[in-house]
Amino acid sequence: MPDNAAGIPVKIIAVGDELLEGRTADTNSQRIQRAIGGHGVQVALIQVVPDRPSDIVRALDRTEDGDLVFVSGGLGSTPDDLTREVVADWAQAPLAEDPAVRAQLEQRWKKRGLKTSSGADRQSQVPRGMKPVTNPVGSAPALVGRLRGRMLVLLPGVPQELEGLLKPVVLMLHDMGALPQPSPTLLWRTAQAAELNLVKTCADIRARYSNLDWSWWLTDWGVDIRLASRSTTAGPGDLAAAEKELDLVLGRLVYSRRMESLPQVVQRLMLDRRRTLSVAESCTAGLIGGRLTDQPGSSGFFRGGILAYADEIKKEQLGIPAAMLREKGAVSRETAEAMATGCRGKIGTDYAVAVSGISGPDGGTQAKPVGTTWVAVATPVAVFSRQYRFPADRQRNRLLTVAAAIDSVRRVLEGGDDKSPWAADDSWCLPS
Amino acid sequence: MPDNAAGIPVKIIAVGDELLEGRTADTNSQRIQRAIGGHGVQVALIQVVPDRPSDIVRALDRTEDGDLVFVSGGLGSTPDDLTREVVADWAQAPLAEDPAVRAQLEQRWKKRGLKTSSGADRQSQVPRGMKPVTNPVGSAPALVGRLRGRMLVLLPGVPQELEGLLKPVVLMLHDMGALPQPSPTLLWRTAQAAELNLVKTCADIRARYSNLDWSWWLTDWGVDIRLASRSTTAGPGDLAAAEKELDLVLGRLVYSRRMESLPQVVQRLMLDRRRTLSVAESCTAGLIGGRLTDQPGSSGFFRGGILAYADEIKKEQLGIPAAMLREKGAVSRETAEAMATGCRGKIGTDYAVAVSGISGPDGGTQAKPVGTTWVAVATPVAVFSRQYRFPADRQRNRLLTVAAAIDSVRRVLEGGDDKSPWAADDSWCLPS
Repeated sequence: MPDNAAGIPVKIIAVGDELLEGRTADTNSQRIQRAIGGHGVQVALIQVVPDRPSDIVRALDRTEDGDLVFVSGGLGSTPDDLTREVVADWAQAPLAEDPAVRAQLEQRWKKRGLKTSSGADRQSQVPRGMKPVTNPVGSAPALVGRLRGRMLVLLPGVPQELEGLLKPVVLMLHDMGALPQPSPTLLWRTAQAAELNLVKTCADIRARYSNLDWSWWLTDWGVDIRLASRSTTAGPGDLAAAEKELDLVLGRLVYSRRMESLPQVVQRLMLDRRRTLSVAESCTAGLIGGRLTDQPGSSGFFRGGILAYADEIKKEQLGIPAAMLREKGAVSRETAEAMATGCRGKIGTDYAVAVSGISGPDGGTQAKPVGTTWVAVATPVAVFSRQYRFPADRQRNRLLTVAAAIDSVRRVLEGGDDKSPWAADDSWCLPS
Repeated sequence: MPDNAAGIPVKIIAVGDELLEGRTADTNSQRIQRAIGGHGVQVALIQVVPDRPSDIVRALDRTEDGDLVFVSGGLGSTPDDLTREVVADWAQAPLAEDPAVRAQLEQRWKKRGLKTSSGADRQSQVPRGMKPVTNPVGSAPALVGRLRGRMLVLLPGVPQELEGLLKPVVLMLHDMGALPQPSPTLLWRTAQAAELNLVKTCADIRARYSNLDWSWWLTDWGVDIRLASRSTTAGPGDLAAAEKELDLVLGRLVYSRRMESLPQVVQRLMLDRRRTLSVAESCTAGLIGGRLTDQPGSSGFFRGGILAYADEIKKEQLGIPAAMLREKGAVSRETAEAMATGCRGKIGTDYAVAVSGISGPDGGTQAKPVGTTWVAVATPVAVFSRQYRFPADRQRNRLLTVAAAIDSVRRVLEGGDDKSPWAADDSWCLPS
């Protein structure tokens, strides 16, 4: 853990019986961490406690004067929701109704045609010294204020509600001087690079810019690299210099320099060029189409595809010759490329991506072990393919295949319809 | 939280810098909870702390004599992995090399053609008073033993490794008398029932069997209900009586009475009957095919399908007449049923399921608001369909659609090819 004597200590408390019974994992603490990361603060402790006053009080007592404390959960309107009252009691900050909050809640229920619930009474109560922050998604406002020396932030436990409140809460904490301005952070979102390979690739730069804060995050699409300058030891010049070098060394492993998903990048490139895409999936059975359409607007470029899980379907729907399947096999360059070109013609799109592989645990052979997967991309002028050897179990192999397929389309869009989207040193790829 | 004076208090400590930087959410604590749930224990506190000796010690000091304490993380071989040493120091239980562990580790590295790493020295060290439990997935053994009045369990932080160790660790804790035998627990896995509706449906039984432990878990497929008898206040007779009543009241909402997924149930039914299935997906764009093939063996029943995301594809690949699309629209009974029968014939399977809907956020109208979705199932003798009104955002609407589609197939397989899989009171369904 990086030393940061100047950092404000942050403690997070997640309240909820369901978090201690195995029903629900606490994901809110991670959301909070991500919202405040890069602001010069250290999360020192996360506690997960039941919906019981004594447990919540004990957790509060484990915080210290000067801490920034986030408490999630227990702001709802059921009898189990106690956080507001417990905090008011612990801080000896009496609850009083906030008329503005009350009015908002009544407005909200009116709009939805609901009668004002008795929960509204409790949800419009605010401990003295705290300010409410309007909840854009649900009803309970967040509450922020300095009580007993801690800067307390009370948030609802429902993840979408908490997520919707983090931005305004962080702004309020800035205004109150309780959270430093974020240090400049740079982001590189990479795909198709195994974490270990990426670490090796960046080792030299990391050593020469060791005064910068480096962090790695695994994502659905690959690995994110974040770089921040710790204001006490590095200037913006270092960050800019490191950025130049990292851009060069990472090259096209990078699908984005900002917080957008890989499908969003593909969608943007497709829509900008008014191009269309279809998929021919064997082992992934639809997972690629499903992820390509995560975001609204995907109907602007994605038309559909063929799920050719059984070899018969490869023949009947994609025109793969029986002889090819017999001689080369379903998992081969020839079949994958024929699937891609067949799909492109059949569905009638500018591009098509096809996958055919052995996810496991069965089906592997000496020549084609589990994890062997062909990805092919057909463009208006060519068809390219590459063999991967994914190293994992069925579930992970399929997810890696989805990421590889979508990223290969991205690379073709960026590199040109006539250029192979693969290079000799791509992770998991066998030499062409 | 249910009162359980007889319960052994459990505290969980998750160690790892990455858990406090937003990089990784702590999922290990939930795994541990699930492994020990139903054993008559209460998880009283979860703490997430950095890889720093002082923080780990503080977390241990927050446990008490008599506690069962699980510590995950920090057993690896990097310099950040300190748990073993810190615990030995805190407990004043000197580390000594365990020759059996040493031999196992060397064997493991030999098999993989790796040189024994220096990490092996540390990983074969065991604090006095603790026993090692062989790690079936990774290298570091789990360590179990009573130190300073706590029953301590040290586990690796890598989720797959922790998962592989939980079963043997729980068995060892039983043998040591540190964990009671699991109380009998019964499970009902339901789909297509909104949580609130389910709670209402079970309210009467719950009231009359309030001495049993009731818990609800949201899953990818719907809602699980678990029922356990707390050995101190209820006998097995109560559990059996409650089971009879719950079976009756839940009826076909239940897709399983044991820990198998909905796709696994469909696969079992399909393979038993030697039937085949295909999918015609519009709004879900492949998510259904992707989930149906989660488990190995799915090629035994799943053949493939058509992703008809664009209306043109519905026409060209599924034979939907242009007039139907024009007059009824893509999201209609007629189109969904035609998609299902068209797919069944085209792919050549016994059954086909089709979905066509408006996931959102755009595309809704007064007559067909966001969330309006038709699901149709074609069987050898009939085609059935139902309109849903899913209440959520794009992502959740699509996931609800996937669950509804797969569960509708399950219901047809169980109910008969000539009977509609829907009833008047299904959640989210409009009356037929």
